[in-house]
Amino acid sequence: MPARSSATPARSSATPAEPLRVGLLGHGTVGSAFAALLDERAAEIERFNGRRPVITGVLTRSRGSFDDVLADADIVVELMGGTEPAREYLLAALRAGRDVVSANKQLLSQHGEELFEVARERDVRLRFEAAVAGAVPVVRLLEESLAATPIERIHGIVNGTTNYILSEMARGSSYEQALAEAQRKGYAEADPSDDVSGRDAAAKMAILARLAFGVPVHLDDVPYEGIEHLQADDLEHARELGLGLKLIGAAERRGGAISVRVHPAFLYAGHPLSSVSGPFNAITVESEAITEITMSGPGAGGLQTASAVLGDVVSVMTGGARPPAPPLALPLLEDVKSAFYLHLDVEDRSGVLAAVTRVLEEQEVSIKSFVQRGRGAGEGVRLVMVVHPLPESRLQQALARLAELDSVRSAPRAIRVIEEEFL
Amino acid sequence: MPARSSATPARSSATPAEPLRVGLLGHGTVGSAFAALLDERAAEIERFNGRRPVITGVLTRSRGSFDDVLADADIVVELMGGTEPAREYLLAALRAGRDVVSANKQLLSQHGEELFEVARERDVRLRFEAAVAGAVPVVRLLEESLAATPIERIHGIVNGTTNYILSEMARGSSYEQALAEAQRKGYAEADPSDDVSGRDAAAKMAILARLAFGVPVHLDDVPYEGIEHLQADDLEHARELGLGLKLIGAAERRGGAISVRVHPAFLYAGHPLSSVSGPFNAITVESEAITEITMSGPGAGGLQTASAVLGDVVSVMTGGARPPAPPLALPLLEDVKSAFYLHLDVEDRSGVLAAVTRVLEEQEVSIKSFVQRGRGAGEGVRLVMVVHPLPESRLQQALARLAELDSVRSAPRAIRVIEEEFL
Repeated sequence: MPARSSATPARSSATPAEPLRVGLLGHGTVGSAFAALLDERAAEIERFNGRRPVITGVLTRSRGSFDDVLADADIVVELMGGTEPAREYLLAALRAGRDVVSANKQLLSQHGEELFEVARERDVRLRFEAAVAGAVPVVRLLEESLAATPIERIHGIVNGTTNYILSEMARGSSYEQALAEAQRKGYAEADPSDDVSGRDAAAKMAILARLAFGVPVHLDDVPYEGIEHLQADDLEHARELGLGLKLIGAAERRGGAISVRVHPAFLYAGHPLSSVSGPFNAITVESEAITEITMSGPGAGGLQTASAVLGDVVSVMTGGARPPAPPLALPLLEDVKSAFYLHLDVEDRSGVLAAVTRVLEEQEVSIKSFVQRGRGAGEGVRLVMVVHPLPESRLQQALARLAELDSVRSAPRAIRVIEEEFL
Repeated sequence: MPARSSATPARSSATPAEPLRVGLLGHGTVGSAFAALLDERAAEIERFNGRRPVITGVLTRSRGSFDDVLADADIVVELMGGTEPAREYLLAALRAGRDVVSANKQLLSQHGEELFEVARERDVRLRFEAAVAGAVPVVRLLEESLAATPIERIHGIVNGTTNYILSEMARGSSYEQALAEAQRKGYAEADPSDDVSGRDAAAKMAILARLAFGVPVHLDDVPYEGIEHLQADDLEHARELGLGLKLIGAAERRGGAISVRVHPAFLYAGHPLSSVSGPFNAITVESEAITEITMSGPGAGGLQTASAVLGDVVSVMTGGARPPAPPLALPLLEDVKSAFYLHLDVEDRSGVLAAVTRVLEEQEVSIKSFVQRGRGAGEGVRLVMVVHPLPESRLQQALARLAELDSVRSAPRAIRVIEEEFL
């Protein structure tokens, strides 16, 4: 055990308490940032909480043994990533009565219930603020502050990489240019597929849905759609309609069921998430009692994540929240109602508009706003419209029927539109 | 003690725990909203936390005795407002070993240290989320999530009434029109002086500064300036300069000291608070590790406040945060550096501009941007400028010198300008 620095005695108790022994699994970017931050803040944390956190063991790919780290630790901090062996280690730590902090969204979105159950059985803490939105404390908000109010809906920008790319596209870049720029600035990885496909956001929404609604949601239960297929002119036309484009994670009650999903969506200008630009995260939580609360901050860089992990360590010291209660059984909805933006490339000749609107009418698709724009000689015409909320399955049927029209030149494109409801 | 409803048994433990007995002081708008919300949510809270909260006593102006309420309570919830007898009751409750939840910003900003000290001595909890920003959980953010990172600065819109009035003024209303509209909509009280003078915001900033920096800050230590003197054309000219106008509470480190203050301020369009319109609260917390986190939501209506109070009750049940550590001694700064917007009404004749700029140069006031606008024949000229940061005392000297110029037709107006620093 390292010697206690005599320059920073515990002020809040007469006899200094034992240090809190932290076992660290993983020592990559986040792990080493966490170790450095803990060191820097140890004296201050002791002053506030009466105990000094000290790293007593580190497991990396090349050195250390899990059993040794566990034996010397009061709390285990997992920053390895991936599902195995992280799952095995954390189950062992919880079973051995250790509190656990993890930043591992893949693990929690796929094996969360198993971990929660063991934590409840052993009455230990399992904290995972950093798994969702870095330093934006949405996990805590859902677990603690909003315990008093039934949550109706969460809308989140929970992937900073895609939000950066869409912000660049809104300024005129193509998808490819924006992605390359994100990679150059370190906002996107060399293989960006987990981010741009929406899968990273889906894992985070699975975790948030569990906290908000008490329903176990596995990553595989979350339908997700990414941003790879978006085109710069979708953003341009949308601007004419007063909309902004974001990759949105949604988790909400619909009747007696829950819907959780990730997809690009247009937001009206007044929506709290519509002004969030660049590599940021932001989450809006809606309930009847509070109307809505929005939290925003930088996406999860190493230092932000380390800061959230250390915050979880401190919350374990102060006796914070318990693991989630046993799960509820509410059905997960597949087919939800949404408003949509539609984009059609059609021939520039008479009768085309009538044919299109006839199909929409037959499928009971009701138009809210509409823009028609010529593309220049021989280039056809673009029809851009926003339609009132309808079941997504019916919209898909309408798109299939539209694609069959001779006058429609390429596959119709559809993007969901989110309207404000509470305010 | 009310009978336990047999329809909602505790699921999380085999033997049902005793209910948590809540003694309620005050039964006005917030008190009755809290009682109703507690009743509505009791079963759900029991499911998550194993204990059901039950109101066992209520003290109102006309009925009940404090001693009886205390004797029957595990936790005392104070929603009376005012400093006395609320202070006396809460000290008695803490001394008797009861946990306490309060929404009383006047009490906490004037007698917080006394309450914190007793809570520390008796090792009981004192929670006050609702005292600052209603359902926006900034108290929790500062106490828990950010325990791991030293906070540099807080900027907050912590008074929804004034933010509504300024939003209306930005749309062209006069101050008087906007205030009348706020009163009509129930956002402002018949006597709005606590809100529009900035005193309400000052109390909230005193509480936040204590949490962020560990320094005891009394309401009397917070210089505040309200919005009564603002004019619609300040907003109009500022828009030309790309600025928006808000009543801002600031608490920040400056060297080895702390500055806490409330005043109207212009924000650059990119500032996270600049897009917050209407009767809302929003708070941005900055630190090196997290860059910045912004939280926003509706101002404190009865239901939002009740929801935050109930959240505090739940956090006491789950063993949440301890009272603030003993205070640190850091000096409070009086004279801080700020950028300013200046507005001068001057005669429309040659030499005036030279006289004005000569005074500014002598006082080492450096101009960043400048707009000159004629007011019509015989009406003189308006000079509107933004100056680079300088000590406020030096700006005051410059204003006094400018007011002495013959060519200056009315008292120069100055409003602080907040620029982004971290992002």
